[in-house]
Amino acid sequence: MTSDFTTPCRRFYCPHLSLDEAALEGDQARHATRVLRLRAGETVELFDGCGTVARGTIQHVGRDQVTVSVDQRRREEAAAWEVTIASAVPKGNRLQDMISQLVQVGVDRWIPLRCERASVNPREAKLERLERVVVESARQCRRAWLMRIEAMRSLAQILGESADVRLVAHPGGPRRPRLGEGSGRAVVLIGPEGGWTDAELEQAREAGWNDWSLGPHVMRLETAAVVAAALLR
Amino acid sequence: MTSDFTTPCRRFYCPHLSLDEAALEGDQARHATRVLRLRAGETVELFDGCGTVARGTIQHVGRDQVTVSVDQRRREEAAAWEVTIASAVPKGNRLQDMISQLVQVGVDRWIPLRCERASVNPREAKLERLERVVVESARQCRRAWLMRIEAMRSLAQILGESADVRLVAHPGGPRRPRLGEGSGRAVVLIGPEGGWTDAELEQAREAGWNDWSLGPHVMRLETAAVVAAALLR
Repeated sequence: MTSDFTTPCRRFYCPHLSLDEAALEGDQARHATRVLRLRAGETVELFDGCGTVARGTIQHVGRDQVTVSVDQRRREEAAAWEVTIASAVPKGNRLQDMISQLVQVGVDRWIPLRCERASVNPREAKLERLERVVVESARQCRRAWLMRIEAMRSLAQILGESADVRLVAHPGGPRRPRLGEGSGRAVVLIGPEGGWTDAELEQAREAGWNDWSLGPHVMRLETAAVVAAALLR
Repeated sequence: MTSDFTTPCRRFYCPHLSLDEAALEGDQARHATRVLRLRAGETVELFDGCGTVARGTIQHVGRDQVTVSVDQRRREEAAAWEVTIASAVPKGNRLQDMISQLVQVGVDRWIPLRCERASVNPREAKLERLERVVVESARQCRRAWLMRIEAMRSLAQILGESADVRLVAHPGGPRRPRLGEGSGRAVVLIGPEGGWTDAELEQAREAGWNDWSLGPHVMRLETAAVVAAALLR
């Protein structure tokens, strides 16, 4: 009748999974019907982006909607450490590539950061596209939780964040911090291509943040963000 | 007269640094003259890709060549662990982006791998472009050693490599291996988007290679390669 969660099957994002029947809409429905040409009776996996994953059977394939009867549900706990990357905003496609990689590595939150040497502010339309990248990457990499994208902040605003681990990526700092066995919140700040200004670094240190060197080479900002997240996770 | 190595200055790749006079040619000369419009008397930094870094003064700016008198030289030791990534070949621009990130993270060698579920073989022209990406990324991230790109190999060929640490990235494996304090060679194999076949995994295990999981999510191959390198380094 239905498969367990181990057999691989097609996966879709569906924010509402609490009822016995779920509906795929928009991109997800189009992908199911026009790209994959799925039909009634096929098994699919759905995830709501907040830790619930379900298996179900396609009931009806409509023009812009696919209905699925939910057969099984399972909860995935969030990781013990909540990892936030707050970074300057790379230009063009590099932003989308970075967002996709952060999702794959398991980052929980990304916050665009306004820095002295960079203040690219992604426009509304761009942020909307990024949300689609987040969903698409989560779908592909089988994450149950969506990465959250928050509004742009200044350095002063982000320095006020309370977190158990507060790091500023900077070539001069020490290597290899490691998240402990417990749980908590970690926030890492990644500066722009031109680096932090001395004033910014000073401001961060005064607010109790720690320098952290990601390696001997100067990384592009999107590489630094992904490496930082991978090292913490 | 000349600056020490701490003051930042423009950096160029120059494979021959043993004489008192060095010459920038091709891309490097064009970048110096047409993009940066450098002139005689300016200080530049040169690296030969094999651990030698020099500071010098521009003597003459010609149409296709820039001559530099070498004032100071310094050696940078290679990292204690030599890290090799052998991976399936991502398509299109993703290959170039991956190569650039591997350089930034400090990988020593990249080997394209022929797998059952992927056999993209980069053509000569493509490999030549990749060499330029390697030089350009090393220039920007201030590496003294160039990452080497080797010829494509089959899985059977790479499994014969002798190394102190031999890992196969695979979602089912254990987490967090770590390179010890000493030195040696580490090789990591990264499979194609479709994953390794059971037969390939079996073959690797029989040859004494160990599984290694990079995290709970399924990563795209280029993300997996960069994450693996960052975790080892």
